[in-house]
Amino acid sequence: MIQIDAESIWQDVQAIRARAPLVHNITNYVVMNSTANALLAIGASPVMAHAEEEVGEMVSLASALVINIGTLSASWVRAMHVAMRHASQRGIPVVLDPVGAGATSYRTQTVHELIASTAPQIIRGNASEIAALVSSQTSTKGVDSTLASRSALDAAWALSRSCDSVVSISGDVDYVVWREQQAAIHNGHPMMSRVTGLGCTATALCGAFAAVNPSPFMAAAHAMAVLGIAGEIAAERAEGPGSLQMHLIDALYNLNLQQIAQRLKTGG
Amino acid sequence: MIQIDAESIWQDVQAIRARAPLVHNITNYVVMNSTANALLAIGASPVMAHAEEEVGEMVSLASALVINIGTLSASWVRAMHVAMRHASQRGIPVVLDPVGAGATSYRTQTVHELIASTAPQIIRGNASEIAALVSSQTSTKGVDSTLASRSALDAAWALSRSCDSVVSISGDVDYVVWREQQAAIHNGHPMMSRVTGLGCTATALCGAFAAVNPSPFMAAAHAMAVLGIAGEIAAERAEGPGSLQMHLIDALYNLNLQQIAQRLKTGG
Amino acid sequence: MIQIDAESIWQDVQAIRARAPLVHNITNYVVMNSTANALLAIGASPVMAHAEEEVGEMVSLASALVINIGTLSASWVRAMHVAMRHASQRGIPVVLDPVGAGATSYRTQTVHELIASTAPQIIRGNASEIAALVSSQTSTKGVDSTLASRSALDAAWALSRSCDSVVSISGDVDYVVWREQQAAIHNGHPMMSRVTGLGCTATALCGAFAAVNPSPFMAAAHAMAVLGIAGEIAAERAEGPGSLQMHLIDALYNLNLQQIAQRLKTGG
Repeated sequence: MIQIDAESIWQDVQAIRARAPLVHNITNYVVMNSTANALLAIGASPVMAHAEEEVGEMVSLASALVINIGTLSASWVRAMHVAMRHASQRGIPVVLDPVGAGATSYRTQTVHELIASTAPQIIRGNASEIAALVSSQTSTKGVDSTLASRSALDAAWALSRSCDSVVSISGDVDYVVWREQQAAIHNGHPMMSRVTGLGCTATALCGAFAAVNPSPFMAAAHAMAVLGIAGEIAAERAEGPGSLQMHLIDALYNLNLQQIAQRLKTGG
Repeated sequence: MIQIDAESIWQDVQAIRARAPLVHNITNYVVMNSTANALLAIGASPVMAHAEEEVGEMVSLASALVINIGTLSASWVRAMHVAMRHASQRGIPVVLDPVGAGATSYRTQTVHELIASTAPQIIRGNASEIAALVSSQTSTKGVDSTLASRSALDAAWALSRSCDSVVSISGDVDYVVWREQQAAIHNGHPMMSRVTGLGCTATALCGAFAAVNPSPFMAAAHAMAVLGIAGEIAAERAEGPGSLQMHLIDALYNLNLQQIAQRLKTGG
Repeated sequence: MIQIDAESIWQDVQAIRARAPLVHNITNYVVMNSTANALLAIGASPVMAHAEEEVGEMVSLASALVINIGTLSASWVRAMHVAMRHASQRGIPVVLDPVGAGATSYRTQTVHELIASTAPQIIRGNASEIAALVSSQTSTKGVDSTLASRSALDAAWALSRSCDSVVSISGDVDYVVWREQQAAIHNGHPMMSRVTGLGCTATALCGAFAAVNPSPFMAAAHAMAVLGIAGEIAAERAEGPGSLQMHLIDALYNLNLQQIAQRLKTGG
């Protein structure tokens, strides 16, 4: 069990704010605005580009690539393959969000093909999605998880070993696993599941942290911790998921070391 | 004139919160985020999926299908046809939003073809859109109505009779008509027309209510009442349409029986 | 140096609120919701439509056309060409936002082709984008500018002369240049650069102002001033970019002559 500490999280946040790494997103229509705002709030510089004509060139400017299949279609999937290949050739980190894997065979199959073509540094999903990538017996319901995150831990390990990717399960507890390392992050708030796309925001933040931290394991764990802590701060001020979303962006923008140190809850 | 009462609305809200029905949306780019958040706030589980490769399979998981042509193009329209056919075969409710019908012949024609292929349980539009589906003489301006909702009441009845769909006109007063039943809902606030996509949100909520109420007429009337009431609550706290949108999501999330009972205004 | 005055800005705002001009947007996925809300807040009526089947007909209803290449792809670019040609034939103003020009050759090339086919009345971009349209030596980073706006002033003049378009550079200072006229607007707030799509919002507002003001130069200058002033008002109330975005929409909706007169800062 790796211990995540506030000081190292804070170093990454400061590095993101100082360098404003360009994070290239090929993501879904639902969350483009909210994940761009989350990336800007933490200090990164987001760009969304999905045309096959330009994704290779755009990746060449970026410090991380985030792939999210939430509203996939054939031409977008082709662009994802091209972008991931270019990212791999350039050695920049790739983060993959298998939104809705298990809900349809098209999603599950697409994720398997993307991973087979270019192993991502980080895969982040909810428990249903991670489980569905390992066992076709998993029952899912759309894009929301029907499982507690702990129940997908074995699947996360199996997936991680099969492609040597860091795998992060987000949920009531967030788990991050890779090469004999495991972290559990107990931050966050239940109301976060009532805001669309906060899982996708977690994935986008993984991209920002992977752009500044050479360890994809630490990058994923730090991103999950930061989103959970910002979500807690936001939930204390929110009167519902509408104001939670707004306060969350403000909290990412204003996040400081003291807040991280006071709130960080990691463990088994 | 059917009376809508607070108790039956509240039963539906409780059912949505308890069952979290999956609502499959093929909708427009402008409102995907805001309608997903509205569905989550009321307690439903939204999914957006539009690829022909998967819409049939996704519909098979859903409890309602919402079709919205706001930013239509050929491949999306093909997927709408496939999804509506699957929904009809499975017997799950279909809700159709004819955004901008009358503004271009492409939109009007597409809506006629969708309805001819699979009659929706509920059609919800503004007065201009509903009128344009019945008479090609209707003048429209983009996606905003140029008519008071009452002036499209005859058109709503004609449309409803032609396809046996519940037809809901939203506007200053919301009307719902079907098979000799008519309801008028006087809730809402003028500032709601200054927030993009609240008509689309009404349509999405019709999907959530139709997922739990076997009567499409009651489902549509309840959805319109709930959005109008939440809009009133939000408008009292808002300083403009930006904060109205946020408070509206919070109000949907916090809605209780007392608020419904105090505010519900139905009648001729 | 043309002086922009509060009274003439206010006349345009009142005209927009009175006439609610239809502004047809072919824009990017990230900002569709936020720019639609900004247009509604200032009093205009936005419509988003991108299918080749309907853009010509939709333009025929509109008072201005806004083209934004932020998430371009081949079919969207074809629709942009069609829409711009129709707008030109009808004599309605066209506003072009060259998002990310210089970041990829696909973007730069597309903008050059659009301008060559139909010269826009107004081109609004950040300093990197405007510079990249004049010199291929410009280095850019995604969609965020790496230059101070002043450094692109020569490029703005060169671009303006080459196609006789008003060119507006937004940034720390906003510049507007055309036919020996130049305006500099010193309103705005640094936190605005941490909200995604406020440049795109500036472009959309240029469309609303061009719909009511026959001078594209004054329309662009007024739009930039109004966004800058609303941004200042919002920043005073905001605790971060999340609440800034909300307050900005409210500020556009509530904007009055006194606020404009007190805050307007123009000059060299």
